Amino acid sequence: MDYKFASRLGNLQASAIREIFKYASDPEVIFFAAGNPSVEAFPKDEIKNITNDILTQNPVKALQYGNSEGYISLRNSIKNVILNKEDIVKENDDIIIMSGAQQGIEISCKVLCNKEDIVVCENPSFVGSLNSFKSYGVNLLGITLEHDGICLEELEEALKNNKNIKMIYLIPNFQNPTGFTMSLEKRKAVLELAKKYNVMILEDNPYGDLRFKGNHIPSIKSMDTEGRVIYCGSFSKILSPGLRVGYIVADKDFLQKVVICKQCSDVHTSMLSQLICNEFLQRVDYQKHISKLQQIYKNKSDLMLRELNDKLSDKIEYSKPEGGLFIWCTLPDNIPMDDFCKKAVQEKKVAVVPGKAFLPQDNLSTQSFRINYSTPTDEEIIKGVSLLKELLEEYNI
Amino acid sequence: MDYKFASRLGNLQASAIREIFKYASDPEVIFFAAGNPSVEAFPKDEIKNITNDILTQNPVKALQYGNSEGYISLRNSIKNVILNKEDIVKENDDIIIMSGAQQGIEISCKVLCNKEDIVVCENPSFVGSLNSFKSYGVNLLGITLEHDGICLEELEEALKNNKNIKMIYLIPNFQNPTGFTMSLEKRKAVLELAKKYNVMILEDNPYGDLRFKGNHIPSIKSMDTEGRVIYCGSFSKILSPGLRVGYIVADKDFLQKVVICKQCSDVHTSMLSQLICNEFLQRVDYQKHISKLQQIYKNKSDLMLRELNDKLSDKIEYSKPEGGLFIWCTLPDNIPMDDFCKKAVQEKKVAVVPGKAFLPQDNLSTQSFRINYSTPTDEEIIKGVSLLKELLEEYNI
Repeated sequence: MDYKFASRLGNLQASAIREIFKYASDPEVIFFAAGNPSVEAFPKDEIKNITNDILTQNPVKALQYGNSEGYISLRNSIKNVILNKEDIVKENDDIIIMSGAQQGIEISCKVLCNKEDIVVCENPSFVGSLNSFKSYGVNLLGITLEHDGICLEELEEALKNNKNIKMIYLIPNFQNPTGFTMSLEKRKAVLELAKKYNVMILEDNPYGDLRFKGNHIPSIKSMDTEGRVIYCGSFSKILSPGLRVGYIVADKDFLQKVVICKQCSDVHTSMLSQLICNEFLQRVDYQKHISKLQQIYKNKSDLMLRELNDKLSDKIEYSKPEGGLFIWCTLPDNIPMDDFCKKAVQEKKVAVVPGKAFLPQDNLSTQSFRINYSTPTDEEIIKGVSLLKELLEEYNI
Repeated sequence: MDYKFASRLGNLQASAIREIFKYASDPEVIFFAAGNPSVEAFPKDEIKNITNDILTQNPVKALQYGNSEGYISLRNSIKNVILNKEDIVKENDDIIIMSGAQQGIEISCKVLCNKEDIVVCENPSFVGSLNSFKSYGVNLLGITLEHDGICLEELEEALKNNKNIKMIYLIPNFQNPTGFTMSLEKRKAVLELAKKYNVMILEDNPYGDLRFKGNHIPSIKSMDTEGRVIYCGSFSKILSPGLRVGYIVADKDFLQKVVICKQCSDVHTSMLSQLICNEFLQRVDYQKHISKLQQIYKNKSDLMLRELNDKLSDKIEYSKPEGGLFIWCTLPDNIPMDDFCKKAVQEKKVAVVPGKAFLPQDNLSTQSFRINYSTPTDEEIIKGVSLLKELLEEYNI
């Protein structure tokens, strides 16, 4: 049949990341292209014991329908255990459980944006979110991302010149794909600009607890006094992405619409997953757990940065993240980035993500690619960087 | 803050069912308003054992990211174990895992319908689906639902007079809320009409395996030769709704778009949930399991119908479903339905769902309400029907 699809899907392509993931199952390929938590980071035994207890003591709760807002004990645990370091959940706010932060991001767009509205984002930014926005026919406007966060001048220029900007989408901590972290000054300034031009901020913080260097910087949401910031968090990087549990913190008036859309989307998030996350927060020493993860990612990041420094520092530029999972590498202008990434996977068997996957607009270009240190083993990190060095040397620069 | 919400949400209200669910936690209230599987129907021990095995043998698979199409073994098991009685998965078709059939329904609409397009549905129909459609700014057109399915004359009239109808949404087996089942003749005729007027059919079949009386009637999808029918199935009524696992069967060209939207929505369905469903289908004798469920629901349905017959048959009309979870009761014209339902819960402590919750358009009305026999205990069924009788007698009819 010749299907007539809705026009909102016009801009939506299968992402370039999917192309690369075809190589994920090839055992010969060193996979620097993922965003998966390290296998060592899963508290496998705790989850097994917790799950067994839930299905022994409270099976019907785990198997029966739940409500769309999410399991009330989990919502409280998130507030008391994960979000207790900052004033994130304000008096008029609430926490709603989402099937991953991804769902919070998609539904925020669904609730706020009409077709042809504009979402401002960092350039580059997380492709999953960009595709969510595009799936509602929204136009994206990318603002240059500097080492300390979004370029303020460019942002204000955009806000001044475009009346139908509805929200600014930001990943302030250890951004995907760059690993950059937004400075406190810029966080304050962006919030002021959002007020001045009356737009919302969608703050996506999946990696915030994975800081292994430097000092904590307050979230934008913690500075919000009027319900202008929507905050999305996730269990994917701190416990398990496979369980698909995230959450959204926002003003109750806003969340009322979110809950209706959530109900339309999947009724509620897996109750078993929610009960596991809740029991985990109840039973373990969360700070100790997080410290363990930070150590794992620090070791892996240190190793990859050492290898990059030893083997590639004269040839490429790369970010030095203080947390998260990603390093952003930039090739010299005379090496065609796409060609390099293709040869990396096809000839050297090292998969990296070409930077174009993260561009919010078709008319932008980049010399960068993303690599990840959480998924590969230490041996793979060492060998993979050597192979990238080999490939670079073949370009005779 | 004064939020400006997207215009697509204009028609979307918190559903009347949510109002009733406020009473769900009141232990004094007999709850005929749910659509929950019976607590006895959960294979609790099997699920516990299966889950423990998964988290012992294959924890990383359950906890790590999966792909958006769903776990390949589960997709195969659904085809071989659940859908093997009929020719549902055609040569050009595939099966994609959804976070409940609800997600399949929502995404089908997202993929096909522009704002102001029309979705034709049965009147009355399942409020969760109707809200999904509305959440894309789609207009609903309800067609009278007769005891043997949608009214064909009215349907053809609608198809003839409205150029922007994109799909016909149907629940052919033990429909929610009525319990009605569409005849074979009507299934064939609807497919012919869909061909003639070139619209898609969305066939929602969550209750199909819960037939406890009468003979199986082939699905519309099994008669489809051109990829015109999208088929949604679910584990919610045959295993557990809390796990949030459903699936969609459709032509591969169509599913390509579904997968992109699924990725935007929640990346993938809970891997742990998917692995549990798969292991369940692998290990148990599915036909035996289904027979057990059918017996549970037959007993409960028989009991409720006997009580209705003994106590209310001279006062109200009610459907006699051959499967599923619901009975549709119709009051005489001189009793105001809304008032009756309100008094039922407030004065008699029996919660039923007022029929208006299931109306696709605001300008429609109904004298009916929905009751459910799967959730209440046998004692509650007997007492609840007696209380409804008491209330009816107070109207002096």
